[in-house]
Parts: sequence; C-alpha cells; structure tokens
Amino acid sequence: MIQVGIVGGTGYTGVELLRLLVSHPEVRVAAITSRGEAGTRVDQRYPNLRGHLDLIFTEPDLGRLSELDVVFFATPHGVAMQMAPALLEQGVRVIDLSADFRLQDPDTFQDWYAMEHVAPDLLKQAVYGLVELNRAALQGASLVAVPGCYPTAVQLGFAPLLEVGCVEFDGLIADTKSGVSGAGRQAKVQNLLCEASENMKAYGVAGHRHLPEIRAQLQRHLGAEVGLTFVPHLTPMIRGIHATLYARLTQPEADLDIQDLFERRYASDRFVDVLPAGAAPETRSVRGANDCRLAVHRPQGGRTLVVLSVIDNLVKGAAGQAVQCMNLCCGFDEGAGLSAPALLP
Amino acid sequence: MIQVGIVGGTGYTGVELLRLLVSHPEVRVAAITSRGEAGTRVDQRYPNLRGHLDLIFTEPDLGRLSELDVVFFATPHGVAMQMAPALLEQGVRVIDLSADFRLQDPDTFQDWYAMEHVAPDLLKQAVYGLVELNRAALQGASLVAVPGCYPTAVQLGFAPLLEVGCVEFDGLIADTKSGVSGAGRQAKVQNLLCEASENMKAYGVAGHRHLPEIRAQLQRHLGAEVGLTFVPHLTPMIRGIHATLYARLTQPEADLDIQDLFERRYASDRFVDVLPAGAAPETRSVRGANDCRLAVHRPQGGRTLVVLSVIDNLVKGAAGQAVQCMNLCCGFDEGAGLSAPALLP
Amino acid sequence: MIQVGIVGGTGYTGVELLRLLVSHPEVRVAAITSRGEAGTRVDQRYPNLRGHLDLIFTEPDLGRLSELDVVFFATPHGVAMQMAPALLEQGVRVIDLSADFRLQDPDTFQDWYAMEHVAPDLLKQAVYGLVELNRAALQGASLVAVPGCYPTAVQLGFAPLLEVGCVEFDGLIADTKSGVSGAGRQAKVQNLLCEASENMKAYGVAGHRHLPEIRAQLQRHLGAEVGLTFVPHLTPMIRGIHATLYARLTQPEADLDIQDLFERRYASDRFVDVLPAGAAPETRSVRGANDCRLAVHRPQGGRTLVVLSVIDNLVKGAAGQAVQCMNLCCGFDEGAGLSAPALLP
Amino acid sequence: MIQVGIVGGTGYTGVELLRLLVSHPEVRVAAITSRGEAGTRVDQRYPNLRGHLDLIFTEPDLGRLSELDVVFFATPHGVAMQMAPALLEQGVRVIDLSADFRLQDPDTFQDWYAMEHVAPDLLKQAVYGLVELNRAALQGASLVAVPGCYPTAVQLGFAPLLEVGCVEFDGLIADTKSGVSGAGRQAKVQNLLCEASENMKAYGVAGHRHLPEIRAQLQRHLGAEVGLTFVPHLTPMIRGIHATLYARLTQPEADLDIQDLFERRYASDRFVDVLPAGAAPETRSVRGANDCRLAVHRPQGGRTLVVLSVIDNLVKGAAGQAVQCMNLCCGFDEGAGLSAPALLP
Repeated sequence: MIQVGIVGGTGYTGVELLRLLVSHPEVRVAAITSRGEAGTRVDQRYPNLRGHLDLIFTEPDLGRLSELDVVFFATPHGVAMQMAPALLEQGVRVIDLSADFRLQDPDTFQDWYAMEHVAPDLLKQAVYGLVELNRAALQGASLVAVPGCYPTAVQLGFAPLLEVGCVEFDGLIADTKSGVSGAGRQAKVQNLLCEASENMKAYGVAGHRHLPEIRAQLQRHLGAEVGLTFVPHLTPMIRGIHATLYARLTQPEADLDIQDLFERRYASDRFVDVLPAGAAPETRSVRGANDCRLAVHRPQGGRTLVVLSVIDNLVKGAAGQAVQCMNLCCGFDEGAGLSAPALLP
Repeated sequence: MIQVGIVGGTGYTGVELLRLLVSHPEVRVAAITSRGEAGTRVDQRYPNLRGHLDLIFTEPDLGRLSELDVVFFATPHGVAMQMAPALLEQGVRVIDLSADFRLQDPDTFQDWYAMEHVAPDLLKQAVYGLVELNRAALQGASLVAVPGCYPTAVQLGFAPLLEVGCVEFDGLIADTKSGVSGAGRQAKVQNLLCEASENMKAYGVAGHRHLPEIRAQLQRHLGAEVGLTFVPHLTPMIRGIHATLYARLTQPEADLDIQDLFERRYASDRFVDVLPAGAAPETRSVRGANDCRLAVHRPQGGRTLVVLSVIDNLVKGAAGQAVQCMNLCCGFDEGAGLSAPALLP
Repeated sequence: MIQVGIVGGTGYTGVELLRLLVSHPEVRVAAITSRGEAGTRVDQRYPNLRGHLDLIFTEPDLGRLSELDVVFFATPHGVAMQMAPALLEQGVRVIDLSADFRLQDPDTFQDWYAMEHVAPDLLKQAVYGLVELNRAALQGASLVAVPGCYPTAVQLGFAPLLEVGCVEFDGLIADTKSGVSGAGRQAKVQNLLCEASENMKAYGVAGHRHLPEIRAQLQRHLGAEVGLTFVPHLTPMIRGIHATLYARLTQPEADLDIQDLFERRYASDRFVDVLPAGAAPETRSVRGANDCRLAVHRPQGGRTLVVLSVIDNLVKGAAGQAVQCMNLCCGFDEGAGLSAPALLP
Repeated sequence: MIQVGIVGGTGYTGVELLRLLVSHPEVRVAAITSRGEAGTRVDQRYPNLRGHLDLIFTEPDLGRLSELDVVFFATPHGVAMQMAPALLEQGVRVIDLSADFRLQDPDTFQDWYAMEHVAPDLLKQAVYGLVELNRAALQGASLVAVPGCYPTAVQLGFAPLLEVGCVEFDGLIADTKSGVSGAGRQAKVQNLLCEASENMKAYGVAGHRHLPEIRAQLQRHLGAEVGLTFVPHLTPMIRGIHATLYARLTQPEADLDIQDLFERRYASDRFVDVLPAGAAPETRSVRGANDCRLAVHRPQGGRTLVVLSVIDNLVKGAAGQAVQCMNLCCGFDEGAGLSAPALLP
C-alpha cells in the first residue's frame, strides 16, 4: 500500500479521485487538502463517501505532503507548478490534473492561461498522461500532466487516422459536447440548473484552452503540424463528453479498411473500446468508468470521415486517467482500481 | 376568421399547432382528427389546453375537412399525399408538416421513405415552406411542404454564405443536436427518460432523411450542387435544435465582413435574428417561439467558418413555421399568432 | 395604456414579468431597474426578449418611478418596504413580489426575515394578493403583497376544505415539491445543474419562511388557528410546484361529496381548474401559464384526504399572479395578458 | 465461486444485477435468460458491460437453471411463482425481485395483481428480504422475496418509531418520490423523456401495489395493525427514491431522543446510515450504492415527526438488496460486492 494525498480536493475531480481511490487495492488516501474547507470532514461535503473515508480537509502543508508516495493536484491552474518542485525533490511522485504541465512551451502557457509559468524547467520533464499514446514514457514517471477532458476524447479519436496519415492534417474539425461537470463546482450563474438544463449552446468558439493543448500534443506525437477547428458545446447533463470528429481522406479512392485500422490500433488498450462498424457510442455507456468508446464512419462512401468518441469527463477525462497514470508510474496493474462497469441507466 | 382543421393531432407537432392556433387572431380550430383517439376530448390528452379548446378528436373525414379553409397534416409520412389531392380540388389549402411534399423527385422520396409516392404530380406544385428563402412563392400558395426541423436550422445558417458563394459548396459539415421531442411521441424504448436523459449520442450517421431534403432544396435554391456531411445527435432535453455548421472560405485572404453579410441577409426577416459578433445562441432563447437565432464565427481568422443556428424544433422547425406559411398563404400578417417571446428559464 | 416599471428586474421573477407584460394589451413597460446591471440592455441579459423590448437597465430612481402608474418590486426582501411609502404617496400603485408586506405582524416579519420592518404602518394597508381568496379587496387596491409560491399552491388546495370546516384544523400536512427556479438566479453551489439535477432532497424542514405566511393568512381568512407541518423539497426541474396536502376529516362517516365541493368553490375562478375525480395534475400542464390545477382524493375511503395542487412557481406563484393582481387594481379584465396556454411538452 | 443465473435479464433490475455481480468476488454469472432477446449478446443490449461479461441471452430452460447455485428472477410478476417450485426442489436457491412472494396471503395477491397465485404453499416459506428487519431469517434461506423499492424506503424509515411504539399506528403518511427507472424499461408514452422530464405528478393515489405490501409486512413485523396513506410521485430523474414520512407522537410531552433512537436502531447495519440531527439526505448520495440514508426531524417541537429516507431504487430498492440477501443465504460477508461508493455528482 502506498500513501497518497490530494491537494485541492473539494472540486468534482477531487471527489471523483476519492471515489476511485477508496476502492483501489494498492492505495491508502492519507491526506486531502483544501484551504477553504480545512477542518471540515470530507464526508460532510461529500455524503456519498460516508463510511468509506475517515478524513478531514487540512491546509496544504509541504512537510506533510512530502512524506507521501504520490500527490495528486486537483487544483485550479497555477497551484501545482508552485508546489511540484519541492515535492519532486523529496522523491514524491506528482500527478497534476490541472493544466500546469500540459504545454511544453512556457510562452504558449502564458498566452492561454494569463500567468507566467514559475517552473518552466519541469515542462520538458513532465510526461503527458494520455496513456494510449504515451504508455512507455509513463512507466516509472515522477511528474505527470494529466490531459484535459476534451483533449483525451479528441486525440484518441483522431490518432489512428493521423498516425497512418490517411487524412489531411489540415482542416480537422472537432465538434465536442460536454456535460456541465466539466465546468467544475464553482458557483457561476451560467452553470445553474435553471440556466444549463433544457439548453444547448456553443462556447469558446473563438478559442478554448484545450485547443493549443490538442494541437501541440498531436504535433509532438506526429512530428507534423495539424490544423484544427475546435468548437465545444455545453450539454444539459452532468457527466460525459461526446466528440464528433471530421477529417478528409487524402486518397478517397484508396482501398482502406478504417474499421480494421481502429480495431488494430487499440487492440491491446483495455480502456479504449472500438465499437462494431455502424454503431454509435453513447456517453452513458461510460458513466463512472474509465473507458473511451469509439466508432468510425464514412457516410455515403464520401471523402469525409466521421469519428465518434465518448468518455466520462471526470473519469477517463480526469480522475480515472490520473489513476491509470499512477498505476503505470508505480508499477501496478494498469487497470487496478478501475474495473467497475459504467452505471447504466 | 378562417376555419382550420388538423389531421393527426395527437403527436407533438399536433399539440403545438393547437397551442399556437388557439391564440391566433384570424383562426378558429374547427376539427382535429385522430384514428386512435376518436371520441376523446383533446384537453383530456393535453391538459394544458383545458379551458382553451372545446373539441373532440374525430375520425378523419374528407367531407367534413372539405368544408374548411385550411387543413394541416401533422401525420406520419404517407398520409398527406393520399388526402391532399381531394382537398385541393375542393379549394382547401393544405399545409403538410410531414415529408410527403418536401422532395420534388418521387424516386428520391421512394429511396428514403420506402414507399411509392401516390401524388407525384403535386410534388412540383407544392411550395417549400422555408419562408426566408421562399417568401414570394408562399404568398397565396395552396399546397405547402413545411420543412423538416434540421433542414430549417441548417439552411438558414448556410444560406447567406452559399448565396454569395464565398465558401466551397463541397465539404460542408452540419453537426446538429436535437432535443428528444424531434423523435415524436411514439412509445419507443430509446426515447424513455431513463435511456435519453443524461446521455448524448449520434444517430443516423450513415444517412438521415433530412440529408436529401437539405441537399435537394439547397441545390434548387442555388442552382448548383452541394456536398454535405450531416451528423445528427440526440440531446438530453425536450425542445431545441442547435446546428453547428462548418464551411471553408474559397478566398481566405479576401476582405469579407461575414457579420455584416448575415445581418444584411436577414434584415427584413422578423423571425431570423443575427446575434452580435462573438455571441453564441442558446436553444432556450427560442423555446416556444418561432425565432431562429444565428451567429457566425471565424475562429483564429482561419479558413473554416462556423455558423451557430438554433430553433425550437416544434415551432420554427414545425408548427410555428406552418402557421407562418399559413399566414402568407391566406394574406394575414406574417407574424400573426407568433408574437409571444420564448419561455426562459 | 398604463406605464409600468419593475424594480429589480434581473432575477427570474423579473424576466417572467417582462415576458408577460410585453404581450399585455393595456401596459407599456417604461422602466426596469437594476443596480448591478445599470447600463446593460435588457435583451442582452435575456435573449428571449430580443425584438420584444427596447429597454436598458437603469439605477432605481424614485423621481422617475413616481411618474409611472404601477411599480412592481421583484427585489430581495427588504427593498420594497423602503421605497413603497414614497411611491404610494405619489399615487403610484405598488405590487410587491417580495415578502415585505405578506405578514401583518412586524415582529413575525423580523423573526423570520432577520430585519426590522421599516414601514410597519403599511402592513395593515397591504392587500394579500391571493386573488381567489381575496378578490374583492384587490379591486382598486394600491398596495399588493403578492403571495409566495408555496403559499399559493398550499392555500388554494386547503381552502375549500377549511372554509367548510370538514377537516381538522390541526395536523395539516403540506408536502411540497418545487423546481429549482424557486431558489432564484443567485450563483449558489447547491443550485448548480451538477448538484440539483438527478437529485431529490428536502430542505428547510425545521422551518421555512413560507410556513408563517401560510399559517397567518389561513388564520386571517378563516378566523381560526391552524396547525401545519410544511416540508418543501428541491425537485430536479426548472419550473413547477407540486403540493401534496393531507388533512383528516372531522366526520369520516358523514356524506360529503368532496369533488363537488371543490368544483363549486372554484366555479367562477378562471385560473383555478379542478380536475375530474380520480385525476392527478402534472406540473407541466401549467408551465408558463397562470393556472392552478387541483385534484382531491380520498384513498380507500379512509379518514385522510389528499389534495394535489400544481402551479408554475414563476407564474401563478409569482409574476402571473402579480399581473392578475394588477388587472384587478387597475380595473382591467382579470385575465388580460394571461391567456396563453401552457407550453407542453 | 458459486454459479448464478438471472431469469429475465433485459430490464433495469436485470442489468443492475449484472453490474453488481460481475464485480462480486464469490460469484460467476453463468446464465441469463430472455425470451425476447435470446441469441443477442448481453453487451450489445448493455454496452456498459462490454469487456465485463461474455454472455448471450438464452431461452429460460429449467434443466440448465437447475445446475446453478442461485437463480435471480428479474421478471414481470407471475413468472417466478411458476418456475420457483421446480428449482427449489433441485436445491437451487431462488431470489425473486418480483412481487410473487412478497405477500403471504394469496387472496391479497390476487386482489392487487389480478392473477391467481400458483404456488401458494411457498408464500409461507418465502423469507421477506428486508435485511435490517429480517436478518436472522435470511441466513441460509432458500427462497427470498426481495421487497419493492418503496416498501424498502418506507419501512426502514418507520421501523424505529413503530418498534418502540412512540407514534400512533394509525394515520401514518408516506409521501414518496421515485425516479422514472422505477417504472421499468417498457416502452410506454408516459415514461418518455418528453413526458416525464421537467414534470412532477402523483400517481396511484387511489391504491398502489406497494401499499398492501408495506401494510402487511409492517403488521407482521409489529404484530399490530397499521393505518397508512401512501402517495407515490413520479420525479424527473433516472434513479432514486425519496420517502418523506409523517407520524404523530403518542406522548408529545414525553422526553424522547429520536435522533438517538434512530442511531441505536441501525448502529450495526452497515447499509443504513443515520445522518446527524438537522440534516436532509439527498438521493444522489446513494446513486449506484446499496445504502439507505435516513434523517429524523420534529419540526417546531410539534406532535408530527418527519422522517426522510433515501435509497437508489435499483440498488437497495432492488438489485443491491437482492445481492445482500444472496450474501446472507450463501454465508458470504453481508457486504460482498456492495462496497463501491455512490456516484456523485
């Protein structure tokens, strides 16, 4: 059993990490911090954890955290980069669910997050935690940047096509739909039930922070530039991301079995499930589970391919992927603590 | 006051027609038919109409319907084409909310609706009821094919760009999201609350019946072929369509004010509202109203334009547009009976 | 046409008042105030009103408001009692949707609202705006206290039984369920979609502010004490209140036709609709409408009666009832501007 | 590892049983039957189970089922009573989630379920599976009648009060609210998203089948008659029951610590969680979990007590309680396979 801590445990990714970790066979949650809730019992804030966890939120304390094996950051952007250096020096593995280590270029970070990066040296050292594109590098890693929720769904969907180069790298389109939990647990009018339910809208059309992440990571993975139009939509449900991806075949006349391409690409990835030809994945089929389900279509045999990719934004899009990364870092079975089926209906 | 009837009044478009018509200043609803519900009071099926309507569902009867001024068909596909010829002969105006007269080519109809068209001669005579693209032809028309819900949102969004020819006619993408009422009031497992709420999925990716309608009508309007990828999604809400449309500029370097293009195109259309630059329309802003709200974006100044188009699928996408068509056919004010603001929240 | 103003127009009751008033045949909305939003166009905040209203939020100004015929207060508790005296002196009618004038006893007000009442003299003068229990007093009134949403549904359901005295006045139970819009548009975590949807919970069990209002008004109406247990529940929907009321017959053996009792009681009230025996009203049947629908049951012929009462909390429970009161105050038709059917589905 | 089978596995209780059993450490699911779906892969119907279960629906076959250790019935009422006798004779334990063995009196069964009971001898032998009221009898039992969802929530809430006799046995009120999954997966109009979402309504006020079950089981448990008014409501959410229970103290002046009473009553029941004084349980706090959370209130120190009781209707109200019963029947740890926390948000 390793000892783990969570910094910033009051948001939705925090409680989701707790839900997964209290059932993890190799882990004991030893500390959870929150400046705002210090002194409050965790299960008072999250009654689903009553009987599962006997912890109190504490002030974040580097001394205490340094005694742990792994520290997760489920904090707003800008916190992890301040505390990570000291923890890494003490030999603590750091798994950051915020954006602090997702971009390798500090200027790009500053452009999109409107703050200077205070640990630019760590940007190169951090391993991007999209397991199915980066598994080898994650084994034994000490600093992991867990991808954003949209970037997970989008990259897993595009990767098979881009890796073999059968589609144009320019002109990619990602039309993405997210449940409201992706916006976090902050008290904002726009996320009230009366504002967000029975409603559909796009947002961030001019530029969403996940756009540079997707573009940069795909370019790094492929060694080539990609052009992407990315339009996220707020969808009236709690959990789930549905990414609908469009790409143009470079050689529409070529004999290409795209179904087979996808199945082979993910044959040994237990958390990526390619549906049979013609199917369409539902977000509820992954609710609470670490799976990404994919389907690929070529409507009317035309030039445009359509990939459908669904994840639970709080699991494969955040806490579940973080646990999957921890499993690789620590040498556990990749799926440890992540085996429960999705909750349906 | 004209006398109107509704054939097939038990579905959602039927009750929505009733809701609008009972407040219409020029109309008296004189008959409403339903084979399955004949003999039942309408307000027993739809308690929102208690106190507003004193009618009983009757068997459809051509003799009775022939005495009316206007007959709406809110029936499954295949019914209107059987009854319309006789009604037209009697001088009754027919406004069909089903697909029977939306396609001009009877073979295309047969391919997509799996039934032979029994009134092919009327296909040329029928006027396509997308008012903002076809207003002149609708004035005084006797047979109107009210467009499908998706075709309304998609065509209104693409029209300004295609009419001036600033985007490629090939490679258009319409990623559309619809509330569940678009699937009608039939008892199907997939539309149960427990199946459709807290869930997002694509459907009909291989080919949806609204695809040939959009393609054929745009081609007729433009006099040129268009290539379109159309992916509809079932969205966990009752009402609303959000169409997210993608098109590539033919001359990305040209100096083009797309905001101005949209505003001028719809300046005299009271039911199409172009939002200010940078905005994103919400489906709830048109809930229960006959409006289409549009916004147009050019993310990062790139080559791909994004148009956001929202309607209420039961109003501008069905019953409201049908009333708007009736107003034009009968010479009433175009907005008669359609002036109530949307219900928000 | 009278000139009306709304003080505090940014909440849900404010926008609902606007939605109703822009279609009212006798009214022009001349001013709407908001300290927080002064200078903003109203239709920027509420895009459903684009095209219906050409107003800008202004600072509340007594001089300007004094020129109007009627001023509505859709403010937090404590505002109307400060401004009402001056407006009344200028001959402006005041219709207050907050709680400031609902309780006649200033001490009770202070106990439950934790502030001193600054216009205690007006408490006796204010007319309680539950039209169906108080119509005569409302005709020509100059100061109206519009009832709370729960008190409206609860009192309309209990009144027929209590007025004839066929049930015990002690031991009444009101188990009430409200949509989330009842909590207003404030940014509070508990009302986020991710907290309030897919969830049901009671709240305020120890004591909700609507309890003293119901008790005091029923006692005033009946001239006798009533004992009431009142348990409100937050229900995962936007609009609607469902009150389930329990009362014990005093003489279970007596020959009493409770269905007839209810139908006669409300025979001349156009906004109270008694359903046929055996029916159960749905909140959606009044969505957006000013109706209260009632049904009364006597399960298994036992001693306990069950009354089911539904309203739209924002309409009959707030803005619609306010307009109904205004119509009576000003001598308009009681239903003016309130005739549109509910939006269903 | 025991071998278990499920008869009638296509409904919501069926898939929920599968979700729980595939993670159960002592169980292998060896067979699942469905007349309608025989030949279909289970994970084609329920994609959340892809990768967790390699089974195909088969026709129900007594020979095959007789080889198993435990058979669950997740069938409509009337099926289990036909097959149970033969299975029991072969030494197979039977755990019935339908109503067939919940009532001890065959006449009462016939009155409420409109069919003759074909195995009346088994009615006395069947053990009622409300574990916290009946644990001893369930240990080693061979035929279990798993309680209805409402009866579970209602009895667990009333039991502490009735067992000590501090409230009147007559005049009990249970106002209950259920998510739509309680109505099953049948294609019925009333359970469509467009009918059931954004809506609240009572149903079965004149008499619901769970009323005789609650009354009979409480009387059997207490050895005394109880009088109960039971009003269920359909609530716009997928999962969850919220029971709000009202009872009158027999001696309002007596010194009684009801909080302590509840805490002591359930001190050794791991799946019943008594919240601190003043709290109100949320249904989402038990989503997907086998817990019942309770709170007890005495508003304004009056005579009427209010108990709030929440469960997940598909877990503690059906499949979870069935697994808990199986654990007791087979001598496993009572909580085996039931330890995952609820999914929140």
